[in-house]
Amino acid sequence: MRKSAADRFRHLFNRSLVFVRNQQNQQHRLSPIPLSSSRFSSMASDSPFPVTAQNINPQVLKCQYAVRGEIVTLAQNLQKDLQANPGAHSFDEIIYCNIGNPQSLGQQPITFFREVLALCDHPALLDKSETQGLFSADSIERAWQIVDQIPGRATGAYSHSQGIQGLRETIAAGIGERDGFPCNADDIFLTDGASPAVHMMMQLLTRSEKDGILCPIPQYPLYSASITLHGGHLVPYYLDEATGWGLEISEVKKQLEDAKSKGINVRALVVINPGNPTGQVLAEENQRAIVEFCKKEGLVLLADEVYQENVYVPEKKFHSFKKVSRSMGYGDNDICLVSFQSVSKGYHGECGKRGGYMEVTGFSPDVREQIYKVASVNLCSNITGQILASLIMSPPKGVCYVIKDHGISFDLSMTIILGWLDKAPKVGDESYESFMAEKNAILSSLTKRAKSLEEALNKLEGVTCNKAEGAMYLFPRIRLPEKAIKAAEAEKTAPDAFYCKRLLNATGVVVVPGSGFGQVPGTWHFRCTILPQEDRIPAIVTRLTEFHEKFMNEFRD
Amino acid sequence: MRKSAADRFRHLFNRSLVFVRNQQNQQHRLSPIPLSSSRFSSMASDSPFPVTAQNINPQVLKCQYAVRGEIVTLAQNLQKDLQANPGAHSFDEIIYCNIGNPQSLGQQPITFFREVLALCDHPALLDKSETQGLFSADSIERAWQIVDQIPGRATGAYSHSQGIQGLRETIAAGIGERDGFPCNADDIFLTDGASPAVHMMMQLLTRSEKDGILCPIPQYPLYSASITLHGGHLVPYYLDEATGWGLEISEVKKQLEDAKSKGINVRALVVINPGNPTGQVLAEENQRAIVEFCKKEGLVLLADEVYQENVYVPEKKFHSFKKVSRSMGYGDNDICLVSFQSVSKGYHGECGKRGGYMEVTGFSPDVREQIYKVASVNLCSNITGQILASLIMSPPKGVCYVIKDHGISFDLSMTIILGWLDKAPKVGDESYESFMAEKNAILSSLTKRAKSLEEALNKLEGVTCNKAEGAMYLFPRIRLPEKAIKAAEAEKTAPDAFYCKRLLNATGVVVVPGSGFGQVPGTWHFRCTILPQEDRIPAIVTRLTEFHEKFMNEFRD
Repeated sequence: MRKSAADRFRHLFNRSLVFVRNQQNQQHRLSPIPLSSSRFSSMASDSPFPVTAQNINPQVLKCQYAVRGEIVTLAQNLQKDLQANPGAHSFDEIIYCNIGNPQSLGQQPITFFREVLALCDHPALLDKSETQGLFSADSIERAWQIVDQIPGRATGAYSHSQGIQGLRETIAAGIGERDGFPCNADDIFLTDGASPAVHMMMQLLTRSEKDGILCPIPQYPLYSASITLHGGHLVPYYLDEATGWGLEISEVKKQLEDAKSKGINVRALVVINPGNPTGQVLAEENQRAIVEFCKKEGLVLLADEVYQENVYVPEKKFHSFKKVSRSMGYGDNDICLVSFQSVSKGYHGECGKRGGYMEVTGFSPDVREQIYKVASVNLCSNITGQILASLIMSPPKGVCYVIKDHGISFDLSMTIILGWLDKAPKVGDESYESFMAEKNAILSSLTKRAKSLEEALNKLEGVTCNKAEGAMYLFPRIRLPEKAIKAAEAEKTAPDAFYCKRLLNATGVVVVPGSGFGQVPGTWHFRCTILPQEDRIPAIVTRLTEFHEKFMNEFRD
Repeated sequence: MRKSAADRFRHLFNRSLVFVRNQQNQQHRLSPIPLSSSRFSSMASDSPFPVTAQNINPQVLKCQYAVRGEIVTLAQNLQKDLQANPGAHSFDEIIYCNIGNPQSLGQQPITFFREVLALCDHPALLDKSETQGLFSADSIERAWQIVDQIPGRATGAYSHSQGIQGLRETIAAGIGERDGFPCNADDIFLTDGASPAVHMMMQLLTRSEKDGILCPIPQYPLYSASITLHGGHLVPYYLDEATGWGLEISEVKKQLEDAKSKGINVRALVVINPGNPTGQVLAEENQRAIVEFCKKEGLVLLADEVYQENVYVPEKKFHSFKKVSRSMGYGDNDICLVSFQSVSKGYHGECGKRGGYMEVTGFSPDVREQIYKVASVNLCSNITGQILASLIMSPPKGVCYVIKDHGISFDLSMTIILGWLDKAPKVGDESYESFMAEKNAILSSLTKRAKSLEEALNKLEGVTCNKAEGAMYLFPRIRLPEKAIKAAEAEKTAPDAFYCKRLLNATGVVVVPGSGFGQVPGTWHFRCTILPQEDRIPAIVTRLTEFHEKFMNEFRD
């Protein structure tokens, strides 16, 4: 299976660069908002506006971000229409499955995190006795710890450009605990979500369109958008759908050689693990091969690890690339590695708080200074997001036992007294049990939702869908009848966009066409989040199934 | 006076572009951190690191941001030294006057704002009766209003790419009230502070190094840094120190013509009002001339209005450029205007919250779509900052009276019943009086601090300092003895940086050399914030005066 897939790619890879370009151009010709086509064409050089689409930065014009593109604008218009004319459509609400935005679909925030944030936002509460009636004891204790870590307890001051030192130390300790390898707080750059961190690295590495970044296809379009905005060159490597979106080193190598032969100076390799939009979780041996490859080729490994808490299958486990590279014996001077993390994903899904960090290792001190300088120009990331980033890396702890002579500690929510424990257990945090209940409820529900949606999609005629081992998405392949492809062409729309628009208009469900993420030429997909609340899933499945049947009946060859 | 200053500029302007370039190159040769010079020189092409200072984006390398540059790194090292060896220096703390960061120097946050933020961070509080004992009634009411404005009350969800619609409507209403001209919520883009908004506009307008942006000199180095990072060309226009940092249209015109003659396509004019680092507040007629100039020349007016609440002299008043242009009869199709606002400045000084917005008017719909797209790539700004931005534009209101037949309303904190009021007064917000007391205490203290520091600086030998009419800074000119300039040259340091480093080492006071902001060649300045708490000012003045006397005694010609 792997072999034949690789063959198909070899056959296709010469077309792939051209394809991505064409696709960009095609999308570009198609205005993202239908209304604007007419406006756009009326903008000639005699425009009354000194700034026109013809004289702005062409990289801005070229950049695409499908996750909030045309389909979302259509959905917003439909939503307004629904408000103005209830009953005008066959559905009564829009369900946004276009973006990994859990709380917009009803997921509740983790109580402990919000308690701490509220106390840090208004530290005057910490001195009042009534506060103890409203907040958990450990949230008050944690808020005190955090406020004390902020110089002058000034929660409204700009911090150090990399973020508050004490919070970075907490995060570094959390990474150390996760990986079993130490992390230096000086390697942490706190950022407003992962996106600005990705931009910062693309800005640093890109000198001209001759600088290339290897990106998976399909990819999260932040990468293609950021590379375009910074004037670089996206070098695609294809994930193998037939092997559950496998990442083949031979394919990456092939694409690297091909890019080199075209004079592209490839600087970095992006890996998204767990995958977005593809949902696969990489096996450790695969990760080792990737590290080895980057080491050998002198590539910066840009590891998007924002879904590290979102793994839904017992046979797979998340390993950070930092852990993998350290376990291979590679230290800070051996491999350039940037790991991106965000408060927006995981079980917490705090998208609106815009917190995140990158762990930057393997860069020379003078390059580190340049990264620091770029961070400084924006002063610092928001303190609420910084605090939350520290919380997700150091959530409440349970009763902690230390095993005799081994120095190994582990957490238990139930009090089990065992003879081989050599210390009195450390008392657990008051919030631990409720925190674990909230966390586990969310993650186990996501597991169920992923499975239900995957099964439903696989039942549809001509649709195959890999398992979502992790992350928040399914990326089914839809085999569209020739008649549907023709109809799309007549509407000057990509066939998958044609399908997604039809789906939206018929059901109110918003998904993103695969062309927004990239796909093997001639194949069509869409990305759908697994985030609607569990009790809504059956209705969504029914709507989707009915729509698909009607669509196929209309267009079946 | 104006005439002679203009003459001097005419004499200098041919040198000015060259000067800015030279200055950049010079700063570039001087490594920002002394330690790094040796590291840097050891980085040859046989570096073990694939990424080196020689192969990163040269625009990153070139960009400078003095406000957090070399002097701050030195200060941080001194601070560590003080912690490790108390008593090792003649001062016992570092006073950071390098950056407008009020809360880092002891300014307390506005209680009402923080109450609302805490409630929105943990909306579960809103349902609990104990909350009423801890929070003001109007903060609870306001938090309810805000939470209800957020779709699904999801305070942890990504918002619309421009920010939450309801908050933008609140801001638009606040702008309308401030200006007496309407504002459309669709024109508001909420951002993580003003900096990302400035970057967004520079990114949009800059196609190559042939695209120029007119910037005041001295300027806030975010502008030069952003222009450099986006590969554009800074076209300097000099403010006239002799007339209180006056902005002369003749000078701007001259520089525009000069740039045009060199093939530079000038796209925009940056105006910072109140001025940073220069503290002047523009007169309305001056603003009209600027609007007229931009209109005539087809320039985008980028109005940095983040210090709009910071005006300290009764004879000056802040007028937004939007108000000025609308009062001249220019509507949305007549002038391209972007106004930047931030929660970091004003009386609130909430730097760490990273809230702000830009009001974008006068752009064609297709260009607006491009701005929206760039905003979308980063998803949205942080919700806490968004909420705070709405609060600063709609603070608590006092008892509101409506004057008969005029529809004019005004706020009063004292209950005065007048016969010509035609309605029962609207009851004021519970927090109004305490809010006004906090706000007025901060602003009147800043006024006193600005005056004390200005007077002290003007008493120093060879120092002249314009009044801080607004903003948060003084920018004194220091006439350095030839011997000091020679000593600086021997240390390969700009003379003003030499002075500032000496000041830091002798007193612990951190100020930023004028060369970081730009200045007329051959003149030397530094920027010092007016933000240390009032009771600290006398000691700072004493330290500064003693240092300056010693410095002059050492170097006097």
